Amino acid sequence: MARGAARAGGQVVNRAFDELRSRLGEVWDLRLTTWLLEWDQEVMMPRGGAAIRAEQLATIERVTHERATADEVGRLLDELDGYEDELDPESFEASLIRVARRDWEKARRVPTDLQAEMARAAVDGFELWMTARDTSDYTRFRPAIERNLELRRRYVECFDGFDDPYDVLLDDFEPGMKTAEAEAVLLRLREALIPLAAEIADAPQPDSAFLTGPFPVAGQKRAETELLRRLGFEPTAWRLDEIVHPAAYSFGTADIRITTRYSEDSLETLFSAMHEFGHGLYEHQIDPALNRTPLATGVSLGLHESQSRLWENLVGRSLPFWRGVYPLLAETFPDVLGAVDLEAFHQAVNKVEPSLIRVDADEVTYNLHIVLRFELERALLDGTLSLDDLPEAWNVRMREYLGVEVPDDAHGVLQDVHWSSGAFGYFPTYSLGNVISVQIWGRLKTAVPDLDDQIEAGEFGNLRAWLRDHLHRFGRMFTPRETLERAVGGPIDPEPYLGYLRAKAADLYGVAPRA
Amino acid sequence: MARGAARAGGQVVNRAFDELRSRLGEVWDLRLTTWLLEWDQEVMMPRGGAAIRAEQLATIERVTHERATADEVGRLLDELDGYEDELDPESFEASLIRVARRDWEKARRVPTDLQAEMARAAVDGFELWMTARDTSDYTRFRPAIERNLELRRRYVECFDGFDDPYDVLLDDFEPGMKTAEAEAVLLRLREALIPLAAEIADAPQPDSAFLTGPFPVAGQKRAETELLRRLGFEPTAWRLDEIVHPAAYSFGTADIRITTRYSEDSLETLFSAMHEFGHGLYEHQIDPALNRTPLATGVSLGLHESQSRLWENLVGRSLPFWRGVYPLLAETFPDVLGAVDLEAFHQAVNKVEPSLIRVDADEVTYNLHIVLRFELERALLDGTLSLDDLPEAWNVRMREYLGVEVPDDAHGVLQDVHWSSGAFGYFPTYSLGNVISVQIWGRLKTAVPDLDDQIEAGEFGNLRAWLRDHLHRFGRMFTPRETLERAVGGPIDPEPYLGYLRAKAADLYGVAPRA
Repeated sequence: MARGAARAGGQVVNRAFDELRSRLGEVWDLRLTTWLLEWDQEVMMPRGGAAIRAEQLATIERVTHERATADEVGRLLDELDGYEDELDPESFEASLIRVARRDWEKARRVPTDLQAEMARAAVDGFELWMTARDTSDYTRFRPAIERNLELRRRYVECFDGFDDPYDVLLDDFEPGMKTAEAEAVLLRLREALIPLAAEIADAPQPDSAFLTGPFPVAGQKRAETELLRRLGFEPTAWRLDEIVHPAAYSFGTADIRITTRYSEDSLETLFSAMHEFGHGLYEHQIDPALNRTPLATGVSLGLHESQSRLWENLVGRSLPFWRGVYPLLAETFPDVLGAVDLEAFHQAVNKVEPSLIRVDADEVTYNLHIVLRFELERALLDGTLSLDDLPEAWNVRMREYLGVEVPDDAHGVLQDVHWSSGAFGYFPTYSLGNVISVQIWGRLKTAVPDLDDQIEAGEFGNLRAWLRDHLHRFGRMFTPRETLERAVGGPIDPEPYLGYLRAKAADLYGVAPRA
Repeated sequence: MARGAARAGGQVVNRAFDELRSRLGEVWDLRLTTWLLEWDQEVMMPRGGAAIRAEQLATIERVTHERATADEVGRLLDELDGYEDELDPESFEASLIRVARRDWEKARRVPTDLQAEMARAAVDGFELWMTARDTSDYTRFRPAIERNLELRRRYVECFDGFDDPYDVLLDDFEPGMKTAEAEAVLLRLREALIPLAAEIADAPQPDSAFLTGPFPVAGQKRAETELLRRLGFEPTAWRLDEIVHPAAYSFGTADIRITTRYSEDSLETLFSAMHEFGHGLYEHQIDPALNRTPLATGVSLGLHESQSRLWENLVGRSLPFWRGVYPLLAETFPDVLGAVDLEAFHQAVNKVEPSLIRVDADEVTYNLHIVLRFELERALLDGTLSLDDLPEAWNVRMREYLGVEVPDDAHGVLQDVHWSSGAFGYFPTYSLGNVISVQIWGRLKTAVPDLDDQIEAGEFGNLRAWLRDHLHRFGRMFTPRETLERAVGGPIDPEPYLGYLRAKAADLYGVAPRA
């Protein structure tokens, strides 16, 4: 019957497509609203607004879920079956129908009430986490993580056909990827990086004492603004704010907002800003024709993180980049950097050293932080690890993987925001992103042979254009796997990333490269 | 039947009340969302976000209107008829039902599509206005005002039983007030203030040249922050931002946001901040138990403006206030104010002088700006004034009422944001607020006999408490008329306000007070 209607003529079908598109547009407006309420809560809202904001977010989530899962959307999708078959699968229309169908079928499995409860628990959990972290008091955080975990178990029960319950959670962040695939990548990283970190630890260490500053914040802000301007930050479409947790947000392709934080004793804000710029640029360079559709965002968190890591590490920790930018920085902070030469600075910002905090970790040890979180959240989900034992389990693995002692929970299990808002299954995407960033970089180096010279000259136009044309513009038109295939010509593969880290270790530490 | 259900027992009725309250809570969450999207658009959003924001606002308006006007709300209100009769009319429950019924009946008259069109036109109009004002080009603004006017005419057609079409527009801002009542107040002001302004113009003028500064912006921000802190601004519940148009926003009683602007050649930001503080304080001191209900906001714009004007003028331009604050200001700007004594400063900030811009106008001539806008928007609505003739009509009245020549439309018809977003019927409430502020002040002086001393000492606790107890806490529980009656013991009356202005004219200009 549905197909009959579709075959009845273009007129009918186009009306159904237009109606679907209009409904999806409304749902997208509501989703942008949720994200804006969250941005506002973290960046702008006075603390007193928290209780009402939690209710408000729950209401918007409920309305969004109701509209996204309306019977009428299913009816329109049925009606469009035949139309879809006639379309080029790579067209906007076919992609929109395909993605809308997948989203609808997934969302229909989750009751509106559960969706609203998860939203409310996320907001409450964030507030609890802030207090718990500030006081290094895990017991204040425990009710939040317990509640979120309970809700995620109910969420998993809404689905079937998975190999592992964790598949369901991972799918929210890396659609289509199975736990087993992610695990294979992560175990390969663990296997290779624990010995690499040990080899580096045995090598002579570069001096990085000057990286503790002091770097007056006003100077950091000036340097950061200039650096972002060179990369492509334009005030008509971007904004930068200061909060405790760096992040990137998009409210359409021409409203991109990134956040960072400043500390006198570190230049981390520069790397964090390049990281968030990478996230923002992905959203900014999506084809504007996809705006107000569910195609108008990055296709997965792994792909997203590949973009932030590309700008933070492959651009932002490279020698060509600092050849271009270091004079500005040395001028800005003459007291600290006046006597430090370019090579010494480059060595220092690439120093490998096991540490307590994930977001401050170097490229080599970072992934061990991720492996730890991945293993712990899987154990929490399947019940083999109790919440009472979580902090100790954290500390044991930190010792085992990184050889560091956790002095208190603020520097341990309380350091990340993710679990406070129920984002289990999120962490692996950080390492997937690291891996993918180097696969993409390999392609880029071939496509733009003088890339290093361009980076040194502060010319990022070709780099941005390549990323736009081979990755960003597609948004969610294709699956993450298909999107990756388009960008790098194959599936995820940790070896180029490991090769890149080993080459850097050889270059900066004299650690012998392996075959 | 509905009453039968109500009489059937408390259980049934309470369920209906709870359900009504839950639905109203959702609608209120959505309204707060619209206001937050608007705040964000004006304060934070990169310009590139405008097109999507317009769609997003239209979607939220549509969803809100659908939910606010749902049949189910009407059914619940019917069901609660009997319950309402049994309640104390001054109780929370009775007030909520009464106000919800009035809101529902009013909203049901306006089709969802029209509501959405008005929202979209408001956003588009704001963008056009900004461009038009920046280029002083009325022709760019004309399509926006034309569109808004057409939509407002269609809006008026949704109602009946009014004496004047303008009643319908005025009712959105000053519920229950008729055009004839507002007109009587405004004509009385026009009649009394044109001659008073003339008398003052003939008197010796105080020196106010030093008020053009320069006042370095950093110093203004410091002074303003301290001043607001003394009045009662606390960062846990308030924030202050800088934009082109000063305003106050509330997202719940503990999330109050005010905006201001800075100019080196003026101290207007201090008065504008006190003005917006007054608006914010009204919302902040509403009984928190009213949060997430339609009772949780100021009852009318006239009452609201009475609060902003009270802080801006009756506190903020008074001699006792500056006795307490002037030393701080003189210290902050020694180059300009070092040689200016308190009395000279007080005279200067109360200088009466006809000028082009409403928001910069003194207390006497301000109301003549309002009379002009009231007359013009009534004439636009009833078609006796064409949009082609609007700028000239503006300029003619400026000459007639204020004796000033308008050099260009940026300093004339393009100066205010209101018409760009379709807010016809809004302007009179500014003068109603001026009038009411002095009625309230009279009561306050009786209730707090040493008010002047407290103000001089920077003690505003009793002032805030009186306003909370006699006005703010009620929110929308009663009608504006009833609320005014509670606060001042009678209806609106321009004579105390005129008496106040004449007394000030006598004091500062030696203009003889009238009988």
